[in-house]
Amino acid sequence: MELKPLKGTRDFLPEEMIIRQEVLDRIKNVFEIFGFQPLETPALESWEVLSAKGAGGEEILKETYNFEDLGKKRVGLRYDLTVPLARVVASNPNLNLPFKRYQIQNVWRYGDVSKGRLREFLQADIDIVGSESMLADAEVIACAISCFNSLGFKDFLVRLNNRKILSALIKFAGIEEKKSLEVLRSLDKLEKIGEEKVRKELEEKGIPKESINKIFELINVRKNPEKILEKNEDFEEGMKEVNEIISYLELMGVKAKIKIDLSLARGLDYYTGPIFEVSAEKGIGSIAGGGRYDNLIEIFSGRKIPATGISLGIERIIEVMKERKMIKERKTKVDVFVAAISKEVLKKSLEIIQKLRESGIKTDFDLRERNLTRQLEYANSLGVPFVLIIGEKELKTKKFKLRDMVKKVEKEMELGEGIKFLKKNSEKL
Amino acid sequence: MELKPLKGTRDFLPEEMIIRQEVLDRIKNVFEIFGFQPLETPALESWEVLSAKGAGGEEILKETYNFEDLGKKRVGLRYDLTVPLARVVASNPNLNLPFKRYQIQNVWRYGDVSKGRLREFLQADIDIVGSESMLADAEVIACAISCFNSLGFKDFLVRLNNRKILSALIKFAGIEEKKSLEVLRSLDKLEKIGEEKVRKELEEKGIPKESINKIFELINVRKNPEKILEKNEDFEEGMKEVNEIISYLELMGVKAKIKIDLSLARGLDYYTGPIFEVSAEKGIGSIAGGGRYDNLIEIFSGRKIPATGISLGIERIIEVMKERKMIKERKTKVDVFVAAISKEVLKKSLEIIQKLRESGIKTDFDLRERNLTRQLEYANSLGVPFVLIIGEKELKTKKFKLRDMVKKVEKEMELGEGIKFLKKNSEKL
Repeated sequence: MELKPLKGTRDFLPEEMIIRQEVLDRIKNVFEIFGFQPLETPALESWEVLSAKGAGGEEILKETYNFEDLGKKRVGLRYDLTVPLARVVASNPNLNLPFKRYQIQNVWRYGDVSKGRLREFLQADIDIVGSESMLADAEVIACAISCFNSLGFKDFLVRLNNRKILSALIKFAGIEEKKSLEVLRSLDKLEKIGEEKVRKELEEKGIPKESINKIFELINVRKNPEKILEKNEDFEEGMKEVNEIISYLELMGVKAKIKIDLSLARGLDYYTGPIFEVSAEKGIGSIAGGGRYDNLIEIFSGRKIPATGISLGIERIIEVMKERKMIKERKTKVDVFVAAISKEVLKKSLEIIQKLRESGIKTDFDLRERNLTRQLEYANSLGVPFVLIIGEKELKTKKFKLRDMVKKVEKEMELGEGIKFLKKNSEKL
Repeated sequence: MELKPLKGTRDFLPEEMIIRQEVLDRIKNVFEIFGFQPLETPALESWEVLSAKGAGGEEILKETYNFEDLGKKRVGLRYDLTVPLARVVASNPNLNLPFKRYQIQNVWRYGDVSKGRLREFLQADIDIVGSESMLADAEVIACAISCFNSLGFKDFLVRLNNRKILSALIKFAGIEEKKSLEVLRSLDKLEKIGEEKVRKELEEKGIPKESINKIFELINVRKNPEKILEKNEDFEEGMKEVNEIISYLELMGVKAKIKIDLSLARGLDYYTGPIFEVSAEKGIGSIAGGGRYDNLIEIFSGRKIPATGISLGIERIIEVMKERKMIKERKTKVDVFVAAISKEVLKKSLEIIQKLRESGIKTDFDLRERNLTRQLEYANSLGVPFVLIIGEKELKTKKFKLRDMVKKVEKEMELGEGIKFLKKNSEKL
């Protein structure tokens, strides 16, 4: 029988989980400091919701797990956290707006594992529903950067663009509107696969060579694209919005380089306004991305409600933090292992173990009737920092040996002293 | 379009999520104090693993979501956290044993929603793998009770039985072994549906009336069943184990009534030894259950590895805590809402907001250009405890009005003072 988890999915053993918990705790804390409130939605959504026109789009539906449930209803595993949010807002008309929510949950996409893509992965999203102000866009970007600060990342680059600018660009290039999303999806790959391959892809999609040339003419003009796109309303509005976001980020004192990048496109269908990506130090690449989607909720509710948000790429972030040793690795969270020298002594030590635990000290003990040496080996292999050694004598004198497993020294102390010492030590971790 | 979540699944809006997070944080903390380490596994498992003989069993497979994925592989959503744990242990032969892990994740079962059953629900499991000592069983029970203590539950009853005792009982009743799991599944419903209905179910399963009478003869003899089952080896071993668990629980100082209950059966196939359920105050019913499963891991690894564990019924626990008002309800975690009297003032206040946030204070502000009254209404409807009011004058004098939204009083203070005050207040929550 195949015992490994399914392709593209992973088991997270304690060593890995301890890192993930630490990262998520810090992110969650920053989300809350910025006033975002928690939300969770079910893993399964109706196919009707997932495939609604204007939601994720056909590219992503091709990768979406879907099936008939036991009641013959077509359902699917969510591919993102934005479409479920839109459904929640639509189905709760009395929600206080603006609704600032965070959501940290898995999403599923049946992607190509040979390209290192995961099929179950964690997303951490923040969104602001019910504000059309560019201040909301600035707020989600600032919050994302604050998360990365708190994790120890440095040198941020925020790349900004606007679907309105891209729309102007596509019109300028003489491309028909129904092809525009296809073109954006190709453009989105520019940084990854380079201009030549994007040009080829666009040709294959039937875009005339002339139009492709025009697109790249504009994108490559790093300065003053407004000279080419003179007096285009969409372009001007898009630029105005993006510049407004930049000015808010400056007022907020966000420490980041900010760049308008006309090639930034983002893959999902639902964006309507500013789009953004955050990257950190060189070699790390994009670690967060998002944008404004003012029409998505209307698809579900019939009522126009503006919204904007950003998603943190948790798997990438953790991978980088491990590679760069930005986070301390531990195999266990246990503070102290109680080693009794015999089964009889262990029985009498259960009360002491109980006392340690009642004091909030993470305490483990032997469950395999091993001798003292083997118990110490076990504690050592797990990286438990301290071992409390108890024998007949210790039970009588009520003085115990506390062994520091790193410094390899022992100190005798009473239980109360030991508890104080261990508590202080545990807080330092 | 249907906007509610799929039948049997739920959206958790902030008010609900804040309660869930609080409950789970406390439980997680107790798990860690008892030395359990975190583990997570994927939602999807291969059908081969889920349906392995000796795992969950046919009853549960009937309710298991399963389908062919896009690569034509049959997969399913996990129905519990124990089978995935067994797979993980089998696929990691170098794991340090005993392996004490906790796992808090959703499971999915396509159950009857008209009976109030959920189709996506959270389980919080602790298991000890690699110890055959009854001390391990006592440890998981003690840890569960400690969780409930920390949540404010009282008056615990631990009901204990042993699959070995049940096996003796079934033999005594003259029932063929291949029918034994079916009989146990019916017996398991005794407390819920009563003796009469269980008798009827057993008759329908083709169990002779005489055998049924014998079963109930034994179960109803609350005292001295050993007189009837004299010199039965399985029975004696089962009783010995159960009594050993009881003596350990007493040594640990667990404050709970403990009762041997021969009708306790537990629904899952994989149990082999002691089985247990914990209930709290009258009217609450079972809130945790589990048992020993010494053969489950062998199914996957070929190597016999004993294991025992307990699962906390999180949904039931939260439901009861809400009903009994055991937990404070809050709509938001925000500590302070910054209300600026105009857009211009808000722009100049962004720096102040940043300072509050850098001090760890959960801070929100207006994103809809509302007037002061409307901002106060919004903060009030969300239950934000304090509002910091900023106008042109306040920006100049650097003295701000901090409004206590509960007491409805305002106090003027400098930002530094305000930060100190809010921090102190936030820690109290």
